[in-house]
Order: sequence, then C-alpha cells, then structure tokens
Amino acid sequence: MKTNPGNYFEDFRVGQKIAHATPRTLNHGDVALYQALYGSRFALQSSDAFAQAVGLPKSPLDDLLVFHTVFGKSVPDISLNAVANLGYAEGRFLRPVYPGETLSAHSEVIGLKENSNRQTGVVYVRTHGMNEKDEQVLTYVRWVMVRKRDPEAAVPDAVVPALATSVPAQDLHLSPHLKFDALFDTSISGSKHCWDDYKIGEKIDHVDGITVEEAEHMMATRLYQNTARVHFNQFSEGKGRFGRRLIYGGHVISLARAISFNGLANAHIVVGINGGRHVNPLFAGGTVFAWSEVLDKQPAGHRKDAGLVRLRLVATKDLPCSDFPDKDANGAYPENVILDFDYWAVMPRA
Amino acid sequence: MKTNPGNYFEDFRVGQKIAHATPRTLNHGDVALYQALYGSRFALQSSDAFAQAVGLPKSPLDDLLVFHTVFGKSVPDISLNAVANLGYAEGRFLRPVYPGETLSAHSEVIGLKENSNRQTGVVYVRTHGMNEKDEQVLTYVRWVMVRKRDPEAAVPDAVVPALATSVPAQDLHLSPHLKFDALFDTSISGSKHCWDDYKIGEKIDHVDGITVEEAEHMMATRLYQNTARVHFNQFSEGKGRFGRRLIYGGHVISLARAISFNGLANAHIVVGINGGRHVNPLFAGGTVFAWSEVLDKQPAGHRKDAGLVRLRLVATKDLPCSDFPDKDANGAYPENVILDFDYWAVMPRA
Amino acid sequence: MKTNPGNYFEDFRVGQKIAHATPRTLNHGDVALYQALYGSRFALQSSDAFAQAVGLPKSPLDDLLVFHTVFGKSVPDISLNAVANLGYAEGRFLRPVYPGETLSAHSEVIGLKENSNRQTGVVYVRTHGMNEKDEQVLTYVRWVMVRKRDPEAAVPDAVVPALATSVPAQDLHLSPHLKFDALFDTSISGSKHCWDDYKIGEKIDHVDGITVEEAEHMMATRLYQNTARVHFNQFSEGKGRFGRRLIYGGHVISLARAISFNGLANAHIVVGINGGRHVNPLFAGGTVFAWSEVLDKQPAGHRKDAGLVRLRLVATKDLPCSDFPDKDANGAYPENVILDFDYWAVMPRA
Repeated sequence: MKTNPGNYFEDFRVGQKIAHATPRTLNHGDVALYQALYGSRFALQSSDAFAQAVGLPKSPLDDLLVFHTVFGKSVPDISLNAVANLGYAEGRFLRPVYPGETLSAHSEVIGLKENSNRQTGVVYVRTHGMNEKDEQVLTYVRWVMVRKRDPEAAVPDAVVPALATSVPAQDLHLSPHLKFDALFDTSISGSKHCWDDYKIGEKIDHVDGITVEEAEHMMATRLYQNTARVHFNQFSEGKGRFGRRLIYGGHVISLARAISFNGLANAHIVVGINGGRHVNPLFAGGTVFAWSEVLDKQPAGHRKDAGLVRLRLVATKDLPCSDFPDKDANGAYPENVILDFDYWAVMPRA
Repeated sequence: MKTNPGNYFEDFRVGQKIAHATPRTLNHGDVALYQALYGSRFALQSSDAFAQAVGLPKSPLDDLLVFHTVFGKSVPDISLNAVANLGYAEGRFLRPVYPGETLSAHSEVIGLKENSNRQTGVVYVRTHGMNEKDEQVLTYVRWVMVRKRDPEAAVPDAVVPALATSVPAQDLHLSPHLKFDALFDTSISGSKHCWDDYKIGEKIDHVDGITVEEAEHMMATRLYQNTARVHFNQFSEGKGRFGRRLIYGGHVISLARAISFNGLANAHIVVGINGGRHVNPLFAGGTVFAWSEVLDKQPAGHRKDAGLVRLRLVATKDLPCSDFPDKDANGAYPENVILDFDYWAVMPRA
Repeated sequence: MKTNPGNYFEDFRVGQKIAHATPRTLNHGDVALYQALYGSRFALQSSDAFAQAVGLPKSPLDDLLVFHTVFGKSVPDISLNAVANLGYAEGRFLRPVYPGETLSAHSEVIGLKENSNRQTGVVYVRTHGMNEKDEQVLTYVRWVMVRKRDPEAAVPDAVVPALATSVPAQDLHLSPHLKFDALFDTSISGSKHCWDDYKIGEKIDHVDGITVEEAEHMMATRLYQNTARVHFNQFSEGKGRFGRRLIYGGHVISLARAISFNGLANAHIVVGINGGRHVNPLFAGGTVFAWSEVLDKQPAGHRKDAGLVRLRLVATKDLPCSDFPDKDANGAYPENVILDFDYWAVMPRA
C-alpha cells in the first residue's frame, strides 16, 4: 500500500527514533497568514524596527508558529490514528527562528502504556525541531492516545516517563543578543506593565473574544501541514462522534495567546511549555475568550533587563472570562473551558 | 487594570498627542493576502516588472493597505469605545511604501464636541503614518463618535476643526521617480482609457459584485491589527444592535476600489482622501457592488505623463449599480448604499 | 464603455494574438497562501533546503500555482462570456518559476467552431506564460464554450485544431540542475515509493478528504486574479442555474493534487498536462476526495535519477474513492465525480 496508514499503538517501541517527513521553509507569507488568522500584536514579532531596537537582526517568527510547524511534521507518524492529544511537557524554545529558515522534526518514543481495554494505548514522544543548519530550535514532550490496529496484539511492558511539572527557569533559553533595556519604549509595545508589575497569583481577564470560522482553522492547520483528518473532512466527521470538524487544539492556543496581548502586551516571547491540555473540543462558530494567571516569576539568569514569568493561559468558548472560569476542586473542567496551558514567557523589567 | 479600557470622550483634550502602539513591518505576505482578499488588478501594485518599467524600484504596497495599517494602530487609543466612525478628510499619501518597511502611527486631537445627550461626543484626530526612517507616508483626519465613561463628566468647550472639502491638487504627492511615459503599455494595464478619456460628471458602473464571508473580513481586519470588537465577537455581537458581526468599513473601501478596476484600470495610485462615509453597515453574506463618478480633473503639476482625477466611489450591498443608486435630494441614502468615498487618483495621460 | 465586456464568440478569429493584462509578481506570500489553501506537502516545493539538496537554488513555486496565475490572466479576454471550460491539452511546464518572478500571458486563437444552435461556439486558444525575462514558463491549449453577442452574427468556417492525446515524453522539460540522486532521502520526502515502484494500470486511493468553504475558493481565485463572475457573486448566482457560487475548476485540481501526496509523495513536479475535464460542478460545503491511475511510465531522456509517470487524477465530491468511481462504458460520469485530469509528473528513481 502506497498511502500512509500511520502507526498504530503496537507499532511503537520505547527508544524508537522517527525522522518526520517534509521539511518546511517558513517565510514572510507564513508571518502574514499567522497575523491574519490570530491578530497578534506583540511588538517583537510585529516590527523589524522594534526587534532591531532590542538587539535582534529582525522580527523572529512567532514561537507558536514554530511549535505548530514542528508539531505538524510529527502528525503523520505519531498521531494519525490518535483518539486524543493528551498533554505537553518539557517544552523549550532554544533559539529564535527567522523567515527563510527551514524546519524539520524528529521524535523519540520515550514511553508506552496500553490502556486496560486493549483498544488503545498512550504513546509518549519527545520531539525535536531543527533548522536547516541542524541547530535545535525546539524540543517538547507530548503524549497521545493511539488506537491499536489489533486489540489482541501483544505489547511491551508499560514505560511511563518521569516528566517535570514545569521547566526549571535555568533551563530556559533567552537570546543573548536581546537587550530589552537598549531601547524599550512601552508606548510602542502597547503597555507600560513590565515584569516587576505582575504578582504571583494575579489573574487577568483578557476581555476580547474571537469567533472562529471553518475556513480559518482549516487554513491554519494546512499552513502547519498538519494532516489529522478530523480537522478537514466534514463528509466523514459529519458521521462521527461530534458531527462536525474538530478544530486543531493548537489553533486555540494561538488564539488565546493573541487575545492575551490585552493585559500581557510585554510578554513578548514564549520560552517554555510546562504543560497543556485541550480539556474540551472547539467547533467553528464558537467564540474564544481567555484569562491568565501568574503562576511564578523568576529572574532570567543574572539579567537586569528581563525576567521570566510562568503563566497559566485558560481559554473558553462562548463564555467571557471576567469570573475566571476554572476547574473545580476535583479537577473537572466546565464544558465551556477548552484549554489549560502552562508556559514561560519573557518580559522586560521596568 | 492591565487590560486596555480604551479612552472615553472625557479622556481626550484638544492638542493631545498620542503615540500608537505596535509598529508593523509589512511584507510580501501582506501583499499576497491583500490580493487574495480583494482580487485587485492594478498593474503597478501587481507587477514588479511593470513598476520598474515606469520608474519605481518595485511594486509599492497598495495605498489602502497602508491606510488600513495606520488606521488599525489608532483604534486602541481613539476608537475602542466608539459608537460610529463618522468621516475622513484631508488624507494625503506622501510616499510609496515598499515591502519590508515598518509603519507606525501617532495622532493629534484636533477637535472635540460633546453631543447634546451627554452620552457621547465627537473626537477629531489627525493621524500620521510613518516609516521606520521616521518619514511620513500618510496623514489624514478622521472623526468618530466616542462614548463617555460618565455622562456627567465635565468636558472642555467644543472645538470643531475647519476641514477642507477636498485636498487641493497642488498638495498631493506624486513620486518624481514615476514616469508613466517611460513605458506605459495599456494592453498590460488592462485598459486603454487614460486621464484624457474621462470627463467630469461621468459615471461608471463597475458591474462586478463580490460576496463577503465572515472569515474574509475577520482575516483582513486582523491583518491590519484593528482590534475593534464589533468585527470579531459573535458571542457579544449576537446580543447587540445588529445581532451580527459588523464588517470593518475599510474592508468595503478596499473591495469597492478593487471592483473599480473594471472601468478605472489606469487609476493606479490613490494620492488623496477627500472624504468618506460608511452610510450603512455591511454584514457577511452581502454582495458588494460599486460605481464611480468623476468629480474633478486636475493636472499633476507640470507633468505631461500623468493627471489627477477626483473620484467618488459609491458601494452598495445586494444592489447592482447600473442605475447609480445615490442619496436623495435631502442627502439621505438608500439602505443598500454602504459607502460614499471621495478620493484623488493618479492616471497616466494618453 | 470603459468597463470590459469581454469577447464574444464572433469577436475571435483564428490566428488572432491577444496580450493579456496585469502581469503578476509571485512571491513568498503566494507560496504561503497556496500552502494554507491546499495543504500540499511535496518536499521540493515545501523546503528550500530540500530543493538545494537536489540541485535547485531554492524551492520553485508549485506548478499549479503557475498554471492558475497564467490561466487567470487569460480570463478577461477569453472566457468572461464563457458558458463552460471544456478541456485542456498539450500543456508543458518549461522552466521552474521562483518567488520574485513576474508572470504575464498571451494567447493565440487556434480554433473556432460555432455550435449548431448558433447561441454559442467553441474557442480554442494556445496560451503562453512568460517570466519577466520573456522566457516561456508554460504553454497549454484550452477550449471553452463562449456565448455569441448576436446569434445571427456571421462567423468564419469552423477550424478545429488537431491536438495530441498526450504530450510525448520527449517534449517534456526537466531542469538539468535537478539531480534527485544528489541527496534524495525518502524519509524526508514522506514516502519510499519511487518511479520504479509504480506499475502501469495501478490505481491509488488517496484516502483523505477536504471540505471546501466559500472563503477559501474565493481567496484562491482572487489570488490568481481570475475574474470569472460565477465564483464571487452570490447575489447574481443565487438567481442562476445552480443557485450558488461555482468553485473555480482549478481549485479542484489543486486540492486533488495536494490530496494525492498520500500515495504519490515523490511525484514532485508536474511537467505536462495531457488533458483535463471538469465533469461536474463543485460547491462550497462539498468534500473533495481523489484517486489516481498510472497511465504510462517513460524514462526521462537518458537520466538515471528520474523517470516520467503519466497519471490520471480523478476527484470526487462527497464520495470516498476506495472503489475508484469512474465513468461508465459510454464515457458518462457519476454525478459525484468532478474532475478527470491527465498529467505527467517527474519522480526520482530508486
């Protein structure tokens, strides 16, 4: 058979290394489409002049565009037969990516655990994104529930990797060329609030809502060359469990991150992903809102110009966030909460 | 509060200067998206080879893309709490903008007039668009009706600026590098009709109609980083006065301008905006048509290769324009007319 | 009249040459939009690094993006008054096109045949796409049924050109710089199946389906500056024969080609178009599937690194292709089959 059937749970082995197909050169067209799809306004990614004023050669690509591109490469090998994308951990962005760079990806299987019904199992992979010079730009772990081809197939003993609850601050990468104090004008960035102004425990309602259309999430997901079928095929999904196309979870992350500009305008760079769960599905026609919580603050090494802030980004559908809708004491989420994402960002200090 | 509440009417003062946030580098991706959203065919903006043949280094960005980008910057400070965008005047495009340039914007408040109900007031601003070398690329006046935070708040005495009915031809800028006679082949530009062929008072039905989808106007408006909430949030707008998302008025200007190619193919450059009113709202699913009227013709200084033409561009929804639908004797517009826009364009002479 | 009424059947003459308007510079933005609209994954067009590894300076534009752009130029002169686009033949891609090149087009009328009802006639044109150096990048024949302005108008005697059933393999162009054996890693391209692995008569179900939205096909068709009115105007089409906007047939070709990656990942380049028919219309909301048949295999001159494969690409709407839905013994197509396209591709040899 010449078409790719994807891997099933019993095809994976711990320690297996998989080179993913289709390297992808990202360019100014991807930047503009990302802009048109999400409406992001972080100055560093929006303006070459701003980027140069703080020490970079030009605007880097949005970190999440890099993430989605690397993630997309892994789909045909890892999650074509997935039931659900369960979580992320240990994500680190290791260097800025600029227009013209070519990204490729490879993964290592680091854990496997069959489910008790023997129909499915959880696959843990560590995925690495590389540029065309074979420099690593991103690494992260994700785990995903994958169907078995044959429920009776024998599988190896369970291996569940020990994953960090969050990426330690000292392991995060911040470009040494970036100098926020060189020329940081908060009237240009859209907010005067810098690292020192945020308190641990503080919650921010990002106020704005964005309704998602079918054309938008499909264009985004194709831009990332993500081939998961649930996003594109109304003919088959119309007969499936939701009766509709499911929106790629990463689309929600990018929408929520763009919405979070209103309240976090100086959180210019995502440097780490501590965790993330897509706790409910989103469908076209839904309106996405978001709120953030400051989980932690750490210095960025010995730097005086920048600090690290650990943020929890919660997205909802059709539910404004002035009341900070959240999971209950048992960890159960209301049906309108769709994303719980935990990341590290870099902010300038005052 | 770390989110931007926007300014209310009583927050403005005549003479106040506001630097708008988020400079934006426009690039080839923006050019392609603008193409995909409107389908423009003016040769100067479509073809580097054509632009070079008439003396420019390459195709400049569409003038309206520059306008929308500068306009978008001003929204969070000027019109986040606006009820309606009332008009434009004294717009001048001062130099071509090329892919790779970074636009920023600042405004000066030039007028304020509280409405008699004390709920709202009209704010007049002169907005300037600059490139990364701090060269001015655009200036225009707009006025907008803005809510008061507190109807009881005291406000300064009314100041209403005297605005020109139209920009005098001698104040318009035309690049000295542009030489239409250098190599102007009308079979390439799509029409043999040049400046000398148009008569004052002449009306042109542009024939074609374009239906607008939600995904399109939202992608456009996010491309311009325009954050006005009425365009994006079906959850809240569904409960609002229209029950629907309102399409950014600038989207209509760009659609009508692209449609006007059919009849005005040689009106290559917009150099001035004399006025403009969004006289009725447009919603997704509506089909936009347009017609033009030649209001004036003027020489372009001492140039023999080019002339100025003042055009009125009227757009409708769900109404073909063979009968040139227009305001009545009292200045009232039929409900299918959505735009009345008055601008100066440059055309080659025969 | 200053608007373009298009040519009617009686306006054409055999031997007539028509220079089409509006040259168009294609750039990285067009590449990204093409990616977002179709989700193509062929490595040569996706990755500059891959392209360089096999001898090209960078990724060329997708061949079909070049085709649609050249085709779009011809619409205002050839098919504005068309009833139907009937077929393609003798298509040859003559050199790679790279971002930054400017395409223009001209056509020659090579055949005319009035229909017996005298309402319409078939116009045959050979269209040439040129880059800004006046080098030919594409040539193809298409024929189209065009309305007569006046059914009574006298027309010349019928001339029906003799067209090749397929382009002879020796007439196809393959860049001498391209060296698949230089560094061809099938784990990068997404499939280990090369030219030698395909058999004449083999059929491949490409499995995946993509649902099309109105915003997507309109953005695509405007990107190509294709002005055919049936694609854009719901107000008029709502009253027409289908009650809906008709999707540009080329959009279906590009979707089916992108879908065909799953099974033909190494068919990197389209070098010839032998024929093509849009056998049923597609409307928004339909889900496109595709299957391919290997019609022929030929060596690529004396090259050992690459071979030519002639493929039939059949697209359906709302009908998966595991049973290879096809025309019947009388040549009649089921209503769910929408495209029957015959082309030559280049594949690496093992």
